[in-house]
Amino acid sequence: MKETVKRFILPENEIPRRWYNIQAEMPNKPMPPLNPATREPLHAEDLYPLFARECVNQELNMTDAWIDIPDEVREKYKYYRSTPLVRAYGLEKALGTPAHIYFKNESVSPMGSHKLNSAIAQAYYCKQEGVTNVTTETGAGQWGASLAYAASLFGIDAAVYQVKISYEQKPYRRSIMQTFGAQVTPSPSMSTRAGKDILTKHPNHQGSLGTAISEAVELARTTPNCKYTLGSVLSHVTLHQTVIGLEAEKQMEMAGEYPDMVIACFGGGSNFGGIAFPFMRHKIAGEEGKAHTRFIAAEPASCPKLTRGEFRYDFGDEAGYTPLLPMYTLGHNFAPANIHAGGLRYHGAGTVVSQLLKDGLMEAVDVEQLESFEAGCLFARAEGIIPAPESCHAIAATIREARKCAESGEEKVILFNLSGHGLIDMASYDKFLAGDLVNYELPDEVIRHNLDQI
Amino acid sequence: MKETVKRFILPENEIPRRWYNIQAEMPNKPMPPLNPATREPLHAEDLYPLFARECVNQELNMTDAWIDIPDEVREKYKYYRSTPLVRAYGLEKALGTPAHIYFKNESVSPMGSHKLNSAIAQAYYCKQEGVTNVTTETGAGQWGASLAYAASLFGIDAAVYQVKISYEQKPYRRSIMQTFGAQVTPSPSMSTRAGKDILTKHPNHQGSLGTAISEAVELARTTPNCKYTLGSVLSHVTLHQTVIGLEAEKQMEMAGEYPDMVIACFGGGSNFGGIAFPFMRHKIAGEEGKAHTRFIAAEPASCPKLTRGEFRYDFGDEAGYTPLLPMYTLGHNFAPANIHAGGLRYHGAGTVVSQLLKDGLMEAVDVEQLESFEAGCLFARAEGIIPAPESCHAIAATIREARKCAESGEEKVILFNLSGHGLIDMASYDKFLAGDLVNYELPDEVIRHNLDQI
Repeated sequence: MKETVKRFILPENEIPRRWYNIQAEMPNKPMPPLNPATREPLHAEDLYPLFARECVNQELNMTDAWIDIPDEVREKYKYYRSTPLVRAYGLEKALGTPAHIYFKNESVSPMGSHKLNSAIAQAYYCKQEGVTNVTTETGAGQWGASLAYAASLFGIDAAVYQVKISYEQKPYRRSIMQTFGAQVTPSPSMSTRAGKDILTKHPNHQGSLGTAISEAVELARTTPNCKYTLGSVLSHVTLHQTVIGLEAEKQMEMAGEYPDMVIACFGGGSNFGGIAFPFMRHKIAGEEGKAHTRFIAAEPASCPKLTRGEFRYDFGDEAGYTPLLPMYTLGHNFAPANIHAGGLRYHGAGTVVSQLLKDGLMEAVDVEQLESFEAGCLFARAEGIIPAPESCHAIAATIREARKCAESGEEKVILFNLSGHGLIDMASYDKFLAGDLVNYELPDEVIRHNLDQI
Repeated sequence: MKETVKRFILPENEIPRRWYNIQAEMPNKPMPPLNPATREPLHAEDLYPLFARECVNQELNMTDAWIDIPDEVREKYKYYRSTPLVRAYGLEKALGTPAHIYFKNESVSPMGSHKLNSAIAQAYYCKQEGVTNVTTETGAGQWGASLAYAASLFGIDAAVYQVKISYEQKPYRRSIMQTFGAQVTPSPSMSTRAGKDILTKHPNHQGSLGTAISEAVELARTTPNCKYTLGSVLSHVTLHQTVIGLEAEKQMEMAGEYPDMVIACFGGGSNFGGIAFPFMRHKIAGEEGKAHTRFIAAEPASCPKLTRGEFRYDFGDEAGYTPLLPMYTLGHNFAPANIHAGGLRYHGAGTVVSQLLKDGLMEAVDVEQLESFEAGCLFARAEGIIPAPESCHAIAATIREARKCAESGEEKVILFNLSGHGLIDMASYDKFLAGDLVNYELPDEVIRHNLDQI
């Protein structure tokens, strides 16, 4: 029997020491965030009250392509990094494809997803700056769980607003946050003005990331020595996630291959940018043999900001507390259908990804809920890992491309990010297996109506 | 900042190629299993109808210390092995102990526990021998999930009897089994004579591993081309688990240390034997610097076969279908309290471990439920991994020893097996955090009464 190497793992001294800041090398920089009152570009000083200073500086850094990972953060990364790069022989066989499929397995993080990469960094910077409390929002709960753990690592109190539908669908994630000592509130709640306003208008509101952000931002503004943290969308969050792609690049070298396609699911963009940007820098530089790579973001068909949204200035949250951001958006008051991929139910895309999509450096595809779970079950049976409903979208897009290779006979190299496992999302799989899940129609008029309201 | 190596991982070519069979080297061999009707020692032929032949041969092999791992099994191991050996700096700091604490992290297996190591082997041997169906029992569901996945890997149908209390407490594990296509039935059920008999006597019976074994054995006996598989207790199961300790030994060498203590939780003995036996062989051989190691099994105080049971012949199951085994037992009709560590709710210990305990080569301690969850929460906050309720017992025993070192100032090296994660057991943590969990009294008279009924 021929022995094959299945997993590529880096020694600890090869874990990256710097993150990659694509903002410094983009052909067109993202347009600046605007102060909604003045419509003037935002300054760092405008954001310091809300975020850790170092995060703000990273957010607005358009010049340094490489940012040092603090030693303390890197030491915490060692708890679970490097994550394995896996050759998905089982999936290839199940699909009968000549494609070589690799996945970066971020699900082995102790919180079960990539989110910890940025949570540790943000909590560290808060601690360094003397912050005692952090707030955030969470959808599926993966970001909230990661922040709760990271905050506890650095001795900071965490308060998390969890999207109500996820709070109810995924009680175990709430329990995990509570095990790490975080205070968890279903959103919309009566504990903030933003929450009260929404509940007054829509008493049965199921919650959305946009709403939960409004609540967390409001709490941060009204609590002493408290900062707000975000799990995706913003550039500094994506920056922290580039540790994924930087590791994957070294690991693909170990495997002796370079990806023709890099695929990730898309909520706000940090998992996508995390794996894609380190490879995309070679495309931007036009390097030989590395300029042809396609970068594919897989978003849910019921929340299609990249494939059916518009590029324009919009708020990052429901209540309009954030700066105006230049983004592909469905409108900040868009209420996504109750799909189980809670982490992808967000109306907008990060400013960097939005600019890159506009510039044709990446592509986007949309995936219906049923196709995503079919892909997840196929992957689970082939590779033994039950993927998070979010990650199922990346798998579905990968399967589409691998099937094209099966037809054409092309031996393409596909790399996707397995952003998290679905062990805490089994209720979703139950419903799928029982035939109780559906796809959601999203008529153009609904999108139009929401965009017209911006 | 001083850099420390936190995780030790073997390259794939260092994953063991042989399992270690301690039966060949024990100072006193275990006494033979007996045919309950004749009281004569059992022969391989008696067991062939129930188990895969190769498993039976391994079970009764008292001569070969090393058994080759089939290439096909080793290739499947590569999906998740080697598992990391982790230096628990966070836990050491939290305890203020000079002890060096290491844990072998079996929770990174895709099914979340060590159980997959034997499930893959058993399913492989069944497939080789033309078997089309397998049955088994499961407590917490970790074994059942592993067998369901392993069976699907080799294209075999699996039917699993899950202890009713776990079926209800841990619905996600049932969902995982179903995702892999297994048929899952809560036990006791009306689908077998054994189940019916028990339900007739005790209509509200919560189930136990002993009962579920009876049902699975009965189904295997009455189904064509069907074999029974077991997740612990038996020698061949423990043999497969020695891949844990064999890896750990190489990894401890990478760390430049040798354990003074090896600690594991104890249900039937396979996770304990899996990590302990490869180290214990040096103790048996009296090797210099390696003969002093203590081996500590941590069992629940409410199911204390090692610390309060008797060494005698008893059945492995409730209904008395299995051979008579020489074991430390609480009586095969012992009904354990409803602790959340479902995988430890078994009345007896494997024959090898029982003999080793009798011969003083190992020790046992008991841990109350509340102490186990306190230890689990302390570990979670220090190391970021939420441990399975079963594994919490090993952690509690480790913490006791580490605290002794804090008092004495001794720099002992402690290795424990983190047999699984608790992400699917968050309901237990919820109850613990809410103050709703209790310890269970177990009066001597109850144990006496059960033993007198054997």
